Amino acid sequence: MRKVAVIGIGQTRIAEHWDKSLKELVGDAILDALMDAQINAFDALFIGNMMSASANQQQNIGAYISDWVGARGTESMRVESACSSGSAAFRAAVLAVASNEIDFAVAAAVEKMTDSPGAETTANLATAADADWEVSHGVSFIALNALIMQRYLHEYRWDHSSFAGFSVNAHENAMNNPNARLHIPITKEKYNRSPVICDPITLMDASSIGDGAAAVVLVPFDSLIVNDNKTITVIGSAAASDTISVHSRADPLWLSAAEKSAKQAYAQAGISPTDVDLFEYHDAFTIMAVLSLEASGFAERGKAPKLALDNEIQLSGRIPVATMGGLKARGHPVGATGMYQIVEIIQQLRGHAGKNQVAGASIGMAQNIGGSGSNIITHILSNEC
Amino acid sequence: MRKVAVIGIGQTRIAEHWDKSLKELVGDAILDALMDAQINAFDALFIGNMMSASANQQQNIGAYISDWVGARGTESMRVESACSSGSAAFRAAVLAVASNEIDFAVAAAVEKMTDSPGAETTANLATAADADWEVSHGVSFIALNALIMQRYLHEYRWDHSSFAGFSVNAHENAMNNPNARLHIPITKEKYNRSPVICDPITLMDASSIGDGAAAVVLVPFDSLIVNDNKTITVIGSAAASDTISVHSRADPLWLSAAEKSAKQAYAQAGISPTDVDLFEYHDAFTIMAVLSLEASGFAERGKAPKLALDNEIQLSGRIPVATMGGLKARGHPVGATGMYQIVEIIQQLRGHAGKNQVAGASIGMAQNIGGSGSNIITHILSNEC
Repeated sequence: MRKVAVIGIGQTRIAEHWDKSLKELVGDAILDALMDAQINAFDALFIGNMMSASANQQQNIGAYISDWVGARGTESMRVESACSSGSAAFRAAVLAVASNEIDFAVAAAVEKMTDSPGAETTANLATAADADWEVSHGVSFIALNALIMQRYLHEYRWDHSSFAGFSVNAHENAMNNPNARLHIPITKEKYNRSPVICDPITLMDASSIGDGAAAVVLVPFDSLIVNDNKTITVIGSAAASDTISVHSRADPLWLSAAEKSAKQAYAQAGISPTDVDLFEYHDAFTIMAVLSLEASGFAERGKAPKLALDNEIQLSGRIPVATMGGLKARGHPVGATGMYQIVEIIQQLRGHAGKNQVAGASIGMAQNIGGSGSNIITHILSNEC
Repeated sequence: MRKVAVIGIGQTRIAEHWDKSLKELVGDAILDALMDAQINAFDALFIGNMMSASANQQQNIGAYISDWVGARGTESMRVESACSSGSAAFRAAVLAVASNEIDFAVAAAVEKMTDSPGAETTANLATAADADWEVSHGVSFIALNALIMQRYLHEYRWDHSSFAGFSVNAHENAMNNPNARLHIPITKEKYNRSPVICDPITLMDASSIGDGAAAVVLVPFDSLIVNDNKTITVIGSAAASDTISVHSRADPLWLSAAEKSAKQAYAQAGISPTDVDLFEYHDAFTIMAVLSLEASGFAERGKAPKLALDNEIQLSGRIPVATMGGLKARGHPVGATGMYQIVEIIQQLRGHAGKNQVAGASIGMAQNIGGSGSNIITHILSNEC
């Protein structure tokens, strides 16, 4: 395929943006990305979003947003795959630019979850699970994750407290990210004292939702006149699916869609997990961080908690994760999260991550999970052009 | 771009399928398309759907449907642009195959609107309009179309009865389409006696919603070993947007996104409107049929009703439209409609349209409209390989 480069990024702070509508939020991110790319027009807009139909009573948001950002007339479509909608929109844009049909693409993602007319968040999130076989029986999204975590602790004989490091690291990294939802440092002791939400998941295992938007500008690599240190290329892009319901899986503790998409992306990039300098994983709950690390080849099955216990996941560790705070503390505006991951990897690969810079980062990987592992998308980016 | 061929098609009847869920409906269409293509596996699934979040309380339907059709693990995403979601999914699949990243793609579209937990259809359809500036003031979708039609009748001095031919033609063609929603022949007299729904739109101006699904299989043209008469190629694919709200347009009687996408598609195909043998337009309301014909170059501004009065739109006319019944009588399962248009054009170009066959059809065009003209996608297909 035609090699694809990302030349512009933008993001809003993740917060309860009661003063901003969905289009205002994503408009801010898109305009920042266009400014960063130093362009003022584009050919197509790919929008990742999960819950605008229910939370905002607004669909057809491709056209809606094109018009708002001054690109009236431009091709636009919305892409949805629950919490992996952000990276699905990025992937759709990568394919479009690779096809030779689109030269300047904007991929953006947004979620406006608070202070909205239909903001029953738990019900809206539940649409990512199986309506017939999970939701209608009252199993909420956090309950599904709690069942998986319970089984993991039992099967591999870990204590709940062994997961503390993932949350402590995320909160620590978020401290230096001005766009993060939470600027609250936590300790292992605080993690251990945290109230249970859905046993064994505690408040400190769960990510924080919020309103937010992120955007990137993609172009064919060969079209670049100047190849400065702001240019990042996509060297791996793959997606895979799994059963939507957790109970249908042969092994609920193995994210087969993570394994499949990661292996495809590694093969495209010609690398192995040891070549990855940082990993933006999908820590919606700490159990998902653990399963993602294992299925992607960063830890053996049942051993990922050891990475945290051994301090391997810190910025200076063997595999830095959640380098800007992750879903846990940067925040999780569900359908937008995948685009934040891409934007943060680009900040790292440009060397613009400030106090959180991973020294010498040249290859970054993002993995975005929709549902309880039913739709998983892996991207690998590089600053070596 | 890599030339893309369509080698399989499938569709369900459009009806009130109270015995079928969303996944069962679309599963039937996908399995028919795979049987038609004589393949049993594929690389990626692109699903067009508008209202599963609200009508079915189910999102993330890419993974959901992949699993149901026996393709667990396969990449899948949902594409949404209101009533043009079906053709948006087709376009996303075209771009994916053209990119060299995907070899076997399935594009499918589905809408399950009746007998569903959240089947408040008027409210669900309204999410295609501007929530802040149209819907919140109580302007429903049909009301927006009625305002446009009223203005058209005034501006160009047509009687309402001049629109009769579009509906009569659609109902006549649906008689021979076993998958059509309505098998009810109508006359000009019946059209003229039809009850007003939203002045000046009458029941006979409005399309019929329903449950339905359609699907196609796409492959790179160069990969085909056998090039039989079932192979159809995509020679034009373009999308454009407009303001989501009707009042923001300089001219509410001109579908600028139809003009823009049609012109791009003609240029890609190297043809002009006179080369088009049949046109599957988006006659959600007769006024949209008229505006689509004008913006796509089949009639001068303000003159499209003359095409119907002069019997130019029939199967043997200058520009046959709604050849299998159109949205009016084949039916309008909103997010699936665009895929039905593609499937029907392929039936015609294969010479498999039965009593409705357009003699010698070699180039067919589909135009799918999202919102009140805010997202319009035009495809041109050919049987000359």
